[in-house]
Amino acid sequence: MLHILCIVGPSGVGKTELIKKLLVELKRRGYRIAIVKHAPQGFDLDKPGKDSWRYTKAGVDTLVLSSPEKLALIKNVDHDPSLTEISKLLGEDFDIILAEGFRKSNRPKIEVHRKGFELPSAKGVIALVTDESLDINIPQFSLEDITGLSSFIEKKFLKKQSKERVSLFADGKHIPLNPFLKRLFLKTLEAMVSTLKGVEKPNSIDLSIRRKGNDL
Amino acid sequence: MLHILCIVGPSGVGKTELIKKLLVELKRRGYRIAIVKHAPQGFDLDKPGKDSWRYTKAGVDTLVLSSPEKLALIKNVDHDPSLTEISKLLGEDFDIILAEGFRKSNRPKIEVHRKGFELPSAKGVIALVTDESLDINIPQFSLEDITGLSSFIEKKFLKKQSKERVSLFADGKHIPLNPFLKRLFLKTLEAMVSTLKGVEKPNSIDLSIRRKGNDL
Repeated sequence: MLHILCIVGPSGVGKTELIKKLLVELKRRGYRIAIVKHAPQGFDLDKPGKDSWRYTKAGVDTLVLSSPEKLALIKNVDHDPSLTEISKLLGEDFDIILAEGFRKSNRPKIEVHRKGFELPSAKGVIALVTDESLDINIPQFSLEDITGLSSFIEKKFLKKQSKERVSLFADGKHIPLNPFLKRLFLKTLEAMVSTLKGVEKPNSIDLSIRRKGNDL
Repeated sequence: MLHILCIVGPSGVGKTELIKKLLVELKRRGYRIAIVKHAPQGFDLDKPGKDSWRYTKAGVDTLVLSSPEKLALIKNVDHDPSLTEISKLLGEDFDIILAEGFRKSNRPKIEVHRKGFELPSAKGVIALVTDESLDINIPQFSLEDITGLSSFIEKKFLKKQSKERVSLFADGKHIPLNPFLKRLFLKTLEAMVSTLKGVEKPNSIDLSIRRKGNDL
């Protein structure tokens, strides 16, 4: 599964601004980035009268708008999606997901802090971005040190990526695989696919299986 | 892969209205529907100043907005996505995709026609929805006969669905599988997954493999 890093901190501290700068720097270094923004209060994309709004009103579960520049998928959900569910939707074609918010998740986090704001408190914080030095024993970066922070993220997550990535979901649940099992799935699928017409040694394989009845 | 049915016809003929009614009727019959709307002229979801707009301006490839009611994925693309690419993004958890537009695709189509509009001309039209009887040898439904049209779609696509569905993509390209190969992939994966902790006979399996280098 993809690496996921949460950027947390109180409202107004500058999370969006920091993620924007990280995005630019990590893209410059050649990484493929997806951003996830947690909007617990909801968000509004539809405008009354627009077709998308009419479909939503009629009860569509998932709507895709497709144009030559942009594609949007809008899905009604019945619970606040977890980062694992979101990463399944995103697929595997990224190096890292930067998530704004999700402080309650069990993913690694970078907390943004400014003088006068409440002190960092999220669990799983691996680094602080702060405008004052705090007496906490974790790496601290200034708000301007995007280069340093990017190198920290690169070393911690991106340089360690193995050459191959295998991710498996059963009934929508992520199933962790140890290196031996990863290679077993990789080699088996590669061998099976290589016997098919039109494919030899593909760099990406996506296989989905559904049984009818109570499938997802 | 999923069934995809395009609803085509000249602008203003009532495609959105027809799809809305089909959506309600097919959902009532228990099917899971996704709708894809082709917007060749583009569409606008972002509002200047909003966070989503700021991320888009900063060059993010894919942005997800997540709330307890709705999830939106917005992706920059460099070409008009095909229905195959869109169906890969949608995943397998639908019975049919109703696509508004895409008259140039090679998918089966229902064309909507009204008196005074140009005559049906798309290739691959399997039924007409029209307010005048036309001298064309394909099934014709009135604009109000949503029940009849839904039964036609059900018989043609949904009743025929096999109990199991297997879809395979290599390097992002859909690889068609004959029934023997489908069973081979199904049985092999089922056997492999059944040896893992925490899963016995799952109703859905999704496996993704990426090699580094020139993967997608």
